[in-house]
Amino acid sequence: MDPKTSADPFRPSRADRFSFGLWTVGNPGRDPFGEATRARLDPNHIVRKLAECGAWGVNLHDNDLVPFGASATDRDRIVAEFKATLEDCGMVVPMATTNLFTHPVFKDGAFTSNDARVRAFAVQKTMAAIDLGVELGARTHVFWGGREGTEADACRDPRDGLKRFRDALNILTGYVRDQGYDLRFALEAKPNEPRGDIYLSTTGHMLHFIETLDDAEMVGVNPEVAHETMAGLSFVHGVAQAMDAGKLFHIDLNAQRIGRYDQDLRFGSEDMKQAFLLVRLLEGVNGYAAYDGPLHFDAHAYRTEDEAGVWEFAVGCMRTYKILAARARAFDADPDVREILDTESDAEAERLVSGGFDAERVRELRARTFDPDALAAPGLRYERLDQLMTEHLLGVRG
Amino acid sequence: MDPKTSADPFRPSRADRFSFGLWTVGNPGRDPFGEATRARLDPNHIVRKLAECGAWGVNLHDNDLVPFGASATDRDRIVAEFKATLEDCGMVVPMATTNLFTHPVFKDGAFTSNDARVRAFAVQKTMAAIDLGVELGARTHVFWGGREGTEADACRDPRDGLKRFRDALNILTGYVRDQGYDLRFALEAKPNEPRGDIYLSTTGHMLHFIETLDDAEMVGVNPEVAHETMAGLSFVHGVAQAMDAGKLFHIDLNAQRIGRYDQDLRFGSEDMKQAFLLVRLLEGVNGYAAYDGPLHFDAHAYRTEDEAGVWEFAVGCMRTYKILAARARAFDADPDVREILDTESDAEAERLVSGGFDAERVRELRARTFDPDALAAPGLRYERLDQLMTEHLLGVRG
Amino acid sequence: MDPKTSADPFRPSRADRFSFGLWTVGNPGRDPFGEATRARLDPNHIVRKLAECGAWGVNLHDNDLVPFGASATDRDRIVAEFKATLEDCGMVVPMATTNLFTHPVFKDGAFTSNDARVRAFAVQKTMAAIDLGVELGARTHVFWGGREGTEADACRDPRDGLKRFRDALNILTGYVRDQGYDLRFALEAKPNEPRGDIYLSTTGHMLHFIETLDDAEMVGVNPEVAHETMAGLSFVHGVAQAMDAGKLFHIDLNAQRIGRYDQDLRFGSEDMKQAFLLVRLLEGVNGYAAYDGPLHFDAHAYRTEDEAGVWEFAVGCMRTYKILAARARAFDADPDVREILDTESDAEAERLVSGGFDAERVRELRARTFDPDALAAPGLRYERLDQLMTEHLLGVRG
Amino acid sequence: MDPKTSADPFRPSRADRFSFGLWTVGNPGRDPFGEATRARLDPNHIVRKLAECGAWGVNLHDNDLVPFGASATDRDRIVAEFKATLEDCGMVVPMATTNLFTHPVFKDGAFTSNDARVRAFAVQKTMAAIDLGVELGARTHVFWGGREGTEADACRDPRDGLKRFRDALNILTGYVRDQGYDLRFALEAKPNEPRGDIYLSTTGHMLHFIETLDDAEMVGVNPEVAHETMAGLSFVHGVAQAMDAGKLFHIDLNAQRIGRYDQDLRFGSEDMKQAFLLVRLLEGVNGYAAYDGPLHFDAHAYRTEDEAGVWEFAVGCMRTYKILAARARAFDADPDVREILDTESDAEAERLVSGGFDAERVRELRARTFDPDALAAPGLRYERLDQLMTEHLLGVRG
Repeated sequence: MDPKTSADPFRPSRADRFSFGLWTVGNPGRDPFGEATRARLDPNHIVRKLAECGAWGVNLHDNDLVPFGASATDRDRIVAEFKATLEDCGMVVPMATTNLFTHPVFKDGAFTSNDARVRAFAVQKTMAAIDLGVELGARTHVFWGGREGTEADACRDPRDGLKRFRDALNILTGYVRDQGYDLRFALEAKPNEPRGDIYLSTTGHMLHFIETLDDAEMVGVNPEVAHETMAGLSFVHGVAQAMDAGKLFHIDLNAQRIGRYDQDLRFGSEDMKQAFLLVRLLEGVNGYAAYDGPLHFDAHAYRTEDEAGVWEFAVGCMRTYKILAARARAFDADPDVREILDTESDAEAERLVSGGFDAERVRELRARTFDPDALAAPGLRYERLDQLMTEHLLGVRG
Repeated sequence: MDPKTSADPFRPSRADRFSFGLWTVGNPGRDPFGEATRARLDPNHIVRKLAECGAWGVNLHDNDLVPFGASATDRDRIVAEFKATLEDCGMVVPMATTNLFTHPVFKDGAFTSNDARVRAFAVQKTMAAIDLGVELGARTHVFWGGREGTEADACRDPRDGLKRFRDALNILTGYVRDQGYDLRFALEAKPNEPRGDIYLSTTGHMLHFIETLDDAEMVGVNPEVAHETMAGLSFVHGVAQAMDAGKLFHIDLNAQRIGRYDQDLRFGSEDMKQAFLLVRLLEGVNGYAAYDGPLHFDAHAYRTEDEAGVWEFAVGCMRTYKILAARARAFDADPDVREILDTESDAEAERLVSGGFDAERVRELRARTFDPDALAAPGLRYERLDQLMTEHLLGVRG
Repeated sequence: MDPKTSADPFRPSRADRFSFGLWTVGNPGRDPFGEATRARLDPNHIVRKLAECGAWGVNLHDNDLVPFGASATDRDRIVAEFKATLEDCGMVVPMATTNLFTHPVFKDGAFTSNDARVRAFAVQKTMAAIDLGVELGARTHVFWGGREGTEADACRDPRDGLKRFRDALNILTGYVRDQGYDLRFALEAKPNEPRGDIYLSTTGHMLHFIETLDDAEMVGVNPEVAHETMAGLSFVHGVAQAMDAGKLFHIDLNAQRIGRYDQDLRFGSEDMKQAFLLVRLLEGVNGYAAYDGPLHFDAHAYRTEDEAGVWEFAVGCMRTYKILAARARAFDADPDVREILDTESDAEAERLVSGGFDAERVRELRARTFDPDALAAPGLRYERLDQLMTEHLLGVRG
Repeated sequence: MDPKTSADPFRPSRADRFSFGLWTVGNPGRDPFGEATRARLDPNHIVRKLAECGAWGVNLHDNDLVPFGASATDRDRIVAEFKATLEDCGMVVPMATTNLFTHPVFKDGAFTSNDARVRAFAVQKTMAAIDLGVELGARTHVFWGGREGTEADACRDPRDGLKRFRDALNILTGYVRDQGYDLRFALEAKPNEPRGDIYLSTTGHMLHFIETLDDAEMVGVNPEVAHETMAGLSFVHGVAQAMDAGKLFHIDLNAQRIGRYDQDLRFGSEDMKQAFLLVRLLEGVNGYAAYDGPLHFDAHAYRTEDEAGVWEFAVGCMRTYKILAARARAFDADPDVREILDTESDAEAERLVSGGFDAERVRELRARTFDPDALAAPGLRYERLDQLMTEHLLGVRG
């Protein structure tokens, strides 16, 4: 676990494209029942420490760097210093986002508030955050609408919520085009917390919503392990659907137990099997290309930790990713695994069910006789397959 | 609770468009740990009893009516008798669907099986089920892919699952066009059970998937209360998104507790507030048109019931819907409610955030100064609004 | 909904024994993602407003009234003023509790911390909180061990956690006896949040734990709707087990959706059916005595509310309780309900399975022949029973 | 993964005390939506195959071996053959249990039914199952009250349910004493499924309930991974509480995802971290003695498997247990782990909070001054500890 040993194959390096948010390693450990247990860290200090740990990028909300309501002069001074630090450390800002949840003005939503002035302020603030991100080199702007939801559902028709969200995004994609920015948007879903129910609760809902935008091409998703897992959904299936649609623009890695408050735990520290399957998907498998975007850890250290524990946490996220990537490669190369996965399918039947509708093929298909009992008989050896995966994960194979 | 009293405002009638599946009132009460507690009911008997209870339609899987593997002669005899019964009772078959889950041949999926022969058999079986439904007058064919998923996720790339599902639907929409059927498809999502994880786990995922089909126009969704609720998602928000997209082609009404096995309880018997909000949405609210499709109850009576209990159950589903519809009307007409909901928004701000991107409007927006603290100050009276809803539900207002 | 109208049967009054915590109506609306949306309220102001709203009691953590680390002089001054306000308003303090979660010293537990100094400090602080509560007239001291748990479970053997928790309570019950206080302890369980897993996660675990204490008689439970509901357990069954054991010393009423962060919503605003069944249990049913302790609302207003909304919230909690109590009485008096519930059981069989082991009765029992198919045949009319409950709840009966 | 290689350190053997139920490996793959995918296996065949796989024991419900309603002659013949097979294979029957859930007579409960004749029949059937178990050598009789619950909660006061359950157990413990059997009872909790809510929903509720029995000493618990996990509770904490109370009489090992239908998956195939922590607890850790009872796998193979897959599944359960046991030993011996876990506590503070109430010690404790900010300051290195556990699990350490 000494990340400094050069011989260590799991030591993170810039080539791994790992990033952290200022708000993640900078999280001071405040929670609904307790005060902060650690001091807030200076953003420039965070950048330097992340670089030491082997990270490649640092992400931020506008107000992680520039305080809410800061003057233009203060903003410019802060940004200049931060850019110098980035350059000094060889770190990049791959993604930026807008804080539309901390200030009480957003207590009933930002883009979906019933008060059009709140919506206008949110759009204005987002434009400034986009400018900031672009200035820092960000290629992705993430939208997490944490306040876009309800507890008292009658307060607003959910379709009005969708319409307003859409209006805001249409203005903002237009703004990006108008400015000539090289920037894409990534929408991040969450089912609940801090609202009772948040609109567009999963990556699936987001993927569909994107299709209704004026400039769907510019917009993709930023799925987060914890958010889909809270609802007990398969994160791997959701990410796969986004990849299938060419919409996986960014990803938030962490860990979470199902049916709980948003935990944002160290990547891989819960549900190691889903973490393995996710890394395998991202690294490229089954003939599909790998995801080549940033690998962002949206997690924070336990409240029990001091600053040293925060860096242990950060290194742990990256190491576990790399160990899982190695395990995934070994699993897919294992002849015992391949024997199960590389089963031949019936070519004639494949032909009948591929390639869309064709009247002649349908006639052939309807005429063919199947023996369902015979087709049902063979065992599929999935217990063996899953046990092989278990033993790869546990490091007793390969 | 006597549904026969003509003065009873909650007595169901054909005009209400209520439907039940043969498999719902016909459910014999078998479960994973116990044998059937009731005899199976003859489909013709079911139709007669449903008509008596005030239902309008009856839905079916192919094998609810025609046994798996029945000869063509048997099939035609069964169908003829069933059609005669329907006519005799004035009942319709608004929807049909295909059983792609009971036979062991579907143990690892139907449209997504690794074995192309199983997929071909599933498509063939679905064509026959479509023919059957159309013959009975069905205008909607529902697809619930209960077996399309995994427990041992490595067995199949989830993107291959999506691709195969898409291939099957593309053939089937082509088939419907080719036959000249007046029929639409409605896809029904479920997160898990009977598989560990089912592909396209929510209505949101389905809505996006539809956009990737060759004939997206023919395909919509059939959201089910129990399925979205299992994952703890807001059913109302999911249905609203489908309505917003013009894709609510059918709906499955029942009740369910979050985070549990699929319960399919009597409509309204759990989570009365969501049931109220749902009925309010379906009946038309906030200036949006009502849903005018079938109101289908996909639920079954407790195992403790005999046949008499089944009809109590069926009448209960319909009565509760009608009571909730009345409560919703009264709620939205209540001046105390209207006072909260009809708050004026700032017209100038509305203008700035509507209508898509416009360079001039964006300049205006950026130039405007907002006072976030002042905007944050007013209380929104949502506790009052929600308590008014509670008291309407409990029948102590209006 | 005007609580001032004397003719209103649901207007709360002191006789109803309703209480609120200072921290509930005083909650300023801070959450993990946002700052406070309301000003903190002065405790004396809270007491006056609660009295106006019809409440009977006010509860408190030590630090809700006396700031952490206040001097003895400040403490005495604050307490004297508070007592004067209570007397002035005719309000009582039925329950007090200790804040063992806000200060970072408790970041890894109070009574179960690995650091014995933290445990000692927690016991010391609790003694002071007990003194304070008793001075204000409290008859119950509640223990919610919100920090007694883990995220990294290897840090402490859970049995050591239990042992330390037990040690602390043994000292504290001894202290109460030694001081001659007329006080009982009520232990409050919660499965998680703010810790990943909290020890003694449900009321059931607490009931057993109590039996292992030196002075089990002094200790009972304080079940909270939200806490058991988070885990999807039947709150009614848990409370019933506590009543059966004579251990329901206090109760925390609120509302919550399953599988989510701790919501502490207005009583009755979610899961109206469980709320109804709970009120029915507390008010006395089926020949069992009513619960006669305080009816405490451990809930808070939405973040969207200003102070006026807080009092709407408080009145709403109490009104809904009273409406549900009226509905429960009507339900149990309904002849259609009674017909189902008052079914005769077989007296001879009752004799055989009652009264503990008796060799002769067991011989008789073994000799008797049963016809399981015949016993299985009758329908139990539970769909009808549950629909009757639904219609009582919705106010369309009686 | 070849369990036959003698050099394989994870090959199961009789000394490991692994057992399976006839109903587990014999599960034919029927589920709520589908028919059996495998033939039922003959019990004698199961015994022979389990012995080959390295298991030590086989458990059974009465009707797994002797069909419901079998004649005495048939029963005796079946039992004699089964005993011969056991002896032949060197297998034991450590545990037996009663099927009180399959037959419709139990549709509304066995020991808690409103019909005293059903309760009497259930007690009678249990006595026969106890006799059968004892005849086969069982030392533990498990009680899983799967039907003891409700969907329509008004049907029965939950306290009446508890009373009836208690009555039944009091008769049955008396029966065991009267017969002179060397047998203990182990109660198994489950929150729901097949009932909406099952009484005594967790191991915690069961532990308390036991204390209310006439012969509490004879009765302990049989916690099941899947059952506590369904509710999202920490299985490890529940088992630890049972061990602390000397009540862990038996254990059911399997795997499950939170908030889902009862999955009964291969041990270790989900939530590897909890599985690791559980094995560590059972094998003895932190100075506490190991559990020395049977290690029973209450799981079944996926429906996709044929009989060969069933034995892969069985071997997989046992292998994973053994791998985890090895990982646990290495983790606890790791000096980097020990450095964190073996932190010294303050001896003087330990003295003040141990040993129960003592007036003098309490005076000392109250007089001592603590500096909470100083106590709060140190980081606890739990991120490092948990990452060390992760890397042990993944096999990259030790």
